Amino acid sequence: MPAANAQNGCMEINKNCVYLLGAGPGDPDLLTVKAARVLAVADVVVYDHLVGEGVLDLIPARARLIYVGKESGNHSVAQEEISQRLVELGRQGGVVVRLKGGDPYIFGRGGEEITELAAAGIAFQVVPGITAASGMAAYAGIPLTHRDHAQSCLFVTGHLKDGSVDLDWPALARPRQTVVIYMGIGGLDEISRQLIAHGVSAAMPAAIVRNATRSDQRVLQASLGDLPEACRLAGIKPPALIVIGSVAGLAGQLDWFSDIQSGEARQPLKLVRSGNS
Amino acid sequence: MPAANAQNGCMEINKNCVYLLGAGPGDPDLLTVKAARVLAVADVVVYDHLVGEGVLDLIPARARLIYVGKESGNHSVAQEEISQRLVELGRQGGVVVRLKGGDPYIFGRGGEEITELAAAGIAFQVVPGITAASGMAAYAGIPLTHRDHAQSCLFVTGHLKDGSVDLDWPALARPRQTVVIYMGIGGLDEISRQLIAHGVSAAMPAAIVRNATRSDQRVLQASLGDLPEACRLAGIKPPALIVIGSVAGLAGQLDWFSDIQSGEARQPLKLVRSGNS
Repeated sequence: MPAANAQNGCMEINKNCVYLLGAGPGDPDLLTVKAARVLAVADVVVYDHLVGEGVLDLIPARARLIYVGKESGNHSVAQEEISQRLVELGRQGGVVVRLKGGDPYIFGRGGEEITELAAAGIAFQVVPGITAASGMAAYAGIPLTHRDHAQSCLFVTGHLKDGSVDLDWPALARPRQTVVIYMGIGGLDEISRQLIAHGVSAAMPAAIVRNATRSDQRVLQASLGDLPEACRLAGIKPPALIVIGSVAGLAGQLDWFSDIQSGEARQPLKLVRSGNS
Repeated sequence: MPAANAQNGCMEINKNCVYLLGAGPGDPDLLTVKAARVLAVADVVVYDHLVGEGVLDLIPARARLIYVGKESGNHSVAQEEISQRLVELGRQGGVVVRLKGGDPYIFGRGGEEITELAAAGIAFQVVPGITAASGMAAYAGIPLTHRDHAQSCLFVTGHLKDGSVDLDWPALARPRQTVVIYMGIGGLDEISRQLIAHGVSAAMPAAIVRNATRSDQRVLQASLGDLPEACRLAGIKPPALIVIGSVAGLAGQLDWFSDIQSGEARQPLKLVRSGNS
């Protein structure tokens, strides 16, 4: 049955196309085979600050590199400029790569860029990437779903348009789910307080994972109520993911990655109040 | 600054280890570089029916293949047997791959298998995969988040332990999110009815994507109220994802993949009531 067996692997690369490419969470080995193949023939690569250095090392020396790192709080203007830039580059032809950390359609604003390209009649393709939450789950030992813990997972961003933390608290407080908050460290105090106010137990396991999947990944475990203090004590800075849900308690048990890490990053952090053992 | 630049790409493969490997949504090009590298040196591969044929083609001829496809409705017994099997294989040594469709920690029951391996003291690693929702988003043109539409995305499974559809309807009915239901086609009538009963507009854009990222991917767009009828008319069978949220309305506009497909699969399906243009 040749028709039923037909696969679309090794799709030919279009030499006049804008590729919206997910760079994955950081470890360059977590690029998809397709992304690595497209990157290897890129003529131009447009990237920002969330793309891991190991991934940038894979860009061929002959490619033109364009950095469009965005200042926090000044997103909307810059975003229009980036979309316009991509349209111009697409018109010039060649393999244009728009490289984004994680998955371009999960908090990557890829939809907005592709909408502009489509409207301008530029050929495009989208290559998904491992989103930070999936990379974190695998490398920190926190399964996003698990029959004994969570039957769903919710990804939200804590970094909103006007800089405030205006999340849908009742949605985040539902039972039997795993919540992953991207870019939420700045609002951690309010996140912890609001979730508890909306009915989540202060004892609910939670974690912060910084630089997920990179050699300097740090994992911090604490209860939801203790998480802000633990984060301050550990001095964890963005970018980092916040995980809330009972699966976060599995991190120590399902860890394998810290054995591969070296130096200080090897030590998982766990805030345990004295007397709780 | 060599320390700051240290990356963990090209991690050495442990020759006595069980690898829980995400096979991605179907297109073999969407395997990660790491997964492809591990698969190429596998001694044993334990897989089930959700792994794409194109991915299975990448397994070396010398590897022992073990099929553990599970019958629907008889999950729990089989799962214990699979975990036990992995422990035994891990004890025998070599590169043992447990290959799972999508991401092993998103509805893959990977957490349960790894818990058994950890308890038995078997060395393991987890390689994340592109989850079906991410693959679907990129290849069907449905961004999971988008500032004009959705600030969060929720992944749930419609296929529960006892065969019923017992979802957290208030959570699924929250505004400004994209809901992706894995394995929900069997419960589609109830899903549509319950979401409308919980306040979602019957006119809310929705879609069904079957065999996402494969050459025979089918995309069906309809309103939430019309989706069950549209699904029956189109004769779409599992496995398929259900997407609910206004981003589902972008599928036609952001499509690029149907140009690459051939034959019947090229025609996107859209249920539009006569008179609505």
